[in-house]
Amino acid sequence: MKKIGVLTSGGDSPGMNAAIRAAVRGAIYLGMDVYGIDKGYEGLIDGDISQMNISSVSDILHKGGTILRTARSERFMTIEGQKRAKQMLESFGIEGLVIIGGDGSLRGGLDLSKHGVTVMGLPGTIDNDLAYTDYTIGFDTSVNTVLSAVSNIRDTSSSHERTTVIEVMGRHCGDIALYAGLTGGAETILIPEVGVDINAICRKMVQGRNRGKLHNIIIKAEGVDMSTQELAETLKERTGMETKIVVLGYIQRGGSPTARDRMLASRMAYKAVELLQEGSESRAVGINGDEIVHYELGDALKMKRDYDKQVMELADILSI
Amino acid sequence: MKKIGVLTSGGDSPGMNAAIRAAVRGAIYLGMDVYGIDKGYEGLIDGDISQMNISSVSDILHKGGTILRTARSERFMTIEGQKRAKQMLESFGIEGLVIIGGDGSLRGGLDLSKHGVTVMGLPGTIDNDLAYTDYTIGFDTSVNTVLSAVSNIRDTSSSHERTTVIEVMGRHCGDIALYAGLTGGAETILIPEVGVDINAICRKMVQGRNRGKLHNIIIKAEGVDMSTQELAETLKERTGMETKIVVLGYIQRGGSPTARDRMLASRMAYKAVELLQEGSESRAVGINGDEIVHYELGDALKMKRDYDKQVMELADILSI
Amino acid sequence: MKKIGVLTSGGDSPGMNAAIRAAVRGAIYLGMDVYGIDKGYEGLIDGDISQMNISSVSDILHKGGTILRTARSERFMTIEGQKRAKQMLESFGIEGLVIIGGDGSLRGGLDLSKHGVTVMGLPGTIDNDLAYTDYTIGFDTSVNTVLSAVSNIRDTSSSHERTTVIEVMGRHCGDIALYAGLTGGAETILIPEVGVDINAICRKMVQGRNRGKLHNIIIKAEGVDMSTQELAETLKERTGMETKIVVLGYIQRGGSPTARDRMLASRMAYKAVELLQEGSESRAVGINGDEIVHYELGDALKMKRDYDKQVMELADILSI
Amino acid sequence: MKKIGVLTSGGDSPGMNAAIRAAVRGAIYLGMDVYGIDKGYEGLIDGDISQMNISSVSDILHKGGTILRTARSERFMTIEGQKRAKQMLESFGIEGLVIIGGDGSLRGGLDLSKHGVTVMGLPGTIDNDLAYTDYTIGFDTSVNTVLSAVSNIRDTSSSHERTTVIEVMGRHCGDIALYAGLTGGAETILIPEVGVDINAICRKMVQGRNRGKLHNIIIKAEGVDMSTQELAETLKERTGMETKIVVLGYIQRGGSPTARDRMLASRMAYKAVELLQEGSESRAVGINGDEIVHYELGDALKMKRDYDKQVMELADILSI
Repeated sequence: MKKIGVLTSGGDSPGMNAAIRAAVRGAIYLGMDVYGIDKGYEGLIDGDISQMNISSVSDILHKGGTILRTARSERFMTIEGQKRAKQMLESFGIEGLVIIGGDGSLRGGLDLSKHGVTVMGLPGTIDNDLAYTDYTIGFDTSVNTVLSAVSNIRDTSSSHERTTVIEVMGRHCGDIALYAGLTGGAETILIPEVGVDINAICRKMVQGRNRGKLHNIIIKAEGVDMSTQELAETLKERTGMETKIVVLGYIQRGGSPTARDRMLASRMAYKAVELLQEGSESRAVGINGDEIVHYELGDALKMKRDYDKQVMELADILSI
Repeated sequence: MKKIGVLTSGGDSPGMNAAIRAAVRGAIYLGMDVYGIDKGYEGLIDGDISQMNISSVSDILHKGGTILRTARSERFMTIEGQKRAKQMLESFGIEGLVIIGGDGSLRGGLDLSKHGVTVMGLPGTIDNDLAYTDYTIGFDTSVNTVLSAVSNIRDTSSSHERTTVIEVMGRHCGDIALYAGLTGGAETILIPEVGVDINAICRKMVQGRNRGKLHNIIIKAEGVDMSTQELAETLKERTGMETKIVVLGYIQRGGSPTARDRMLASRMAYKAVELLQEGSESRAVGINGDEIVHYELGDALKMKRDYDKQVMELADILSI
Repeated sequence: MKKIGVLTSGGDSPGMNAAIRAAVRGAIYLGMDVYGIDKGYEGLIDGDISQMNISSVSDILHKGGTILRTARSERFMTIEGQKRAKQMLESFGIEGLVIIGGDGSLRGGLDLSKHGVTVMGLPGTIDNDLAYTDYTIGFDTSVNTVLSAVSNIRDTSSSHERTTVIEVMGRHCGDIALYAGLTGGAETILIPEVGVDINAICRKMVQGRNRGKLHNIIIKAEGVDMSTQELAETLKERTGMETKIVVLGYIQRGGSPTARDRMLASRMAYKAVELLQEGSESRAVGINGDEIVHYELGDALKMKRDYDKQVMELADILSI
Repeated sequence: MKKIGVLTSGGDSPGMNAAIRAAVRGAIYLGMDVYGIDKGYEGLIDGDISQMNISSVSDILHKGGTILRTARSERFMTIEGQKRAKQMLESFGIEGLVIIGGDGSLRGGLDLSKHGVTVMGLPGTIDNDLAYTDYTIGFDTSVNTVLSAVSNIRDTSSSHERTTVIEVMGRHCGDIALYAGLTGGAETILIPEVGVDINAICRKMVQGRNRGKLHNIIIKAEGVDMSTQELAETLKERTGMETKIVVLGYIQRGGSPTARDRMLASRMAYKAVELLQEGSESRAVGINGDEIVHYELGDALKMKRDYDKQVMELADILSI
């Protein structure tokens, strides 16, 4: 393969720029030409494509977001849009793509691969919701961002002896809540994969208060089957304890990526361009333990994941 | 004066612990005994009072929140509650108080002073809404916390070319929005002191987009006379640009205080104990320019403030 | 086992407190009594031992350093000292120990185990120099601290177009330099495991300058076989480029642990108390991939490690 | 005035970019053309000058360093160099300059003003060593960077019960040491303006140890009349306490500027372009209390400053 493209798609995540840098510099090192595609599939259809060189990716390693920008593309959802994308790649002579994004973006890549484009999928999402990889690019940064917010909230929560419900991102996957909950010392962690047991939460709140605990932090993923507002009101009603809400929102998406996310992104992206250079079929690149792994793209997206029950149990034991 | 007390009241703010440390160590240095009163006026009425020594305030300088905790006290709102507080102080032999809190807390101090207790009020609030002082303890930290959130949000906002409305604290006073807006490079700043001009915001959004701006950050104080939800929807409708909301909430209250807030708190608290030691009447301690100043407590609370129009104009000029 | 002790030894590392917390709460959860031993082996010999409860480890999860403190102990190097330590444990009825520390500390644990004490070793060191585990507790935090310093230095280095040599910790193991180097985008990484090739460094500096690079960051582990001073002078002489030195020192040891270090510490420490509770022999607990693993203590300490050549190659490719 | 230039000179400081942004956008707002001069006086002599527009300064507000870069210029030290600089400005039609830098850089500006160029000097240096202004651009950021390092070092210092001497920047002016010392809770602060009293330091160390203090932090400005090495050895010898050294170096120069430094830079730079637009003579712009002030350039540079004795006394009282 001589010419490849790189694009980012879907919600951005910290470390996408590190992945772009590694894909570009890695591709050039391996003797390929590399093109940046602006605004994901939307830019691909529109031909927002330009060649990148070593300097195109200077001083981006530490930046959040994505210099290639990202967008949702209605047009790419259609066969017609995908054909148009394929034609555009042909007119630039681009044979393979590195696609950095979440589940939906990689599914888009799978669609494109059916039109004869070789696609290397990289898991770029803070949600850690891709079953084929232990960790996604951006997850570690996001958890650390939540930790920093938890630390601030604990200060004020302790001063007032109040309960605070912190809503974090995660529609279907509660990993941000789970990891930030354990490492932030949250008293209760609520994730979409497990139902809400109001009695258990109230019990823990009351026991904590009786033991003289100054604060009570509940970390709740947004996808949990009870609104944060309703939860807070119910807890207040049942325990009589003042209960406040903080919705962290988009601050979880940004920020300079952690060392781990930069490393993950760099290793995965380099593996992706190596695979393209070797003439591999379409693959999804991930990490298993400390090893970079890759699977047939369609297979990877069919895998099912579950949350880590041991981590949840440990969180419960340690937050007594 | 031989025995004094320290309490924190109302919403906590970063730097309160630095103020407590300076009051305690300063008082001891000046030859006085010093008592900590737990949970503000509530603890004062209940006699949650204990003597502090040099080590009581070790390793608290860098901590957010307040080790003396804080609470709202309904009981203290009544004359009866205030008398009870006065009696409690008498039974401990405490003649003077350092009270660290916002407008309401200092008004409580003024009430208490009318029962014969000498009160030194310190402006402990992130809101910067006390007219008698240029800056309050916690304001600088809070603005820097907002800046850090703005930085994260700008990453993701740029990647998506979207508009984000960031709601910050400030019911009556827009200083957090104003200072974080100018220093965070927000395109628009909305404060309670000034009405919302929807047309002006839309114009700026459209002009920015036409000039190729990747992001548009609007910082809005919570007290502005239009809900953040309504604002975002109106902007989206009128400009057709995707508009997201982030409500920063309680993360603005916590966090390790900045150097400036620690300095401010230390200097003000030491001045307060000096005044007590010298037998001064009740005063409010503040900063004017770079000088620590103090006013008769009642007079201080009568002063009116306005927002800094020059800062607003400058923000407008620089965010073209 | 009914009674266990916890101690930290050697240089401290971020995450030790998270490990202490998990050991204490985990042990209590599993029905054991748990004692904290102050100042490592020195305190063990002196009987600085006290029972810990759930509240003993409240609000320490996010703190750097170790609440149990640490010390070097000459006395424990001798058989006599070790016997004394064993007797002290007997007088408290403590049968097993969780020891958190680096190579030397775990070797001390191995010595103690020969006197009939069951020892669970946890890798608590920023150096990542224990062969039996992929990562040590504190390494991730330390690398992120270095990254943050690199970011600051890059600002000023770019403004002056100068070369900066940053010396980081690592006497025998260059992992901090290697990981911070790749993720910080350092132009050159020097580790003790590989010799210094002055010509290669100069070549890269000159090529970078010719390509218009504004800065040149060299990250060098302290254990490299050429002093930082000599290196900087040699580079300046040969290339004519201004070359500055920054020695990061002890800031790498402190700081609030990252999410990853807290997770690692919590999981490892809980495994250690589980093993003690189950009546296991002495083991070293580590992580392999994403799995918590454990080895016979003596075997673990005999393993040999090498640096990750793939990471080094990747760093080289990406820092063109 | 219709055409002005902006340059940064000397050591860089955080906030210089905020000043450049405000000068450029402010000048354009006021109807002037504005040119950026690369690499300070060196670039001025060489004609590295290009026109800037609103977008030239997008997304630089939060960045450390200076996008205009800086350099020392031997050539500009000569009358001939200054004449050459003046000619270069004439050939571009530039009548006035905004110069952001420290004492030496502003003296360069004064020299240039004698050749008929109107110069507005802005205090851009972390050292806070310019007498005519209460604070310089970059000082607040630098103090906060030192605080963050102190916090890390305290963790490890407490764990080992050791003394640490932290050397910070400041050749003639000890303000970084003084402000970071007070706000970081350092036990001892050593500045060039005051001699070293070894006995006093030892006394404090021993008294602290006897009172059970876990750590002892000494913050020392680099310009103090005793080397850090010698100091540490002397203290160790006299007290028998382990004493470590950390030299913070260039990390103090970089980093994203604090809100306060961005505000200071923005206000000062806008005032500078206003003065140019009004046809003012050469001035030095500074801050006095909370007011932006300006003085005749030569007069400003003749002023003498002293350290703040009250702050030093307060630091001493609070660090008992």
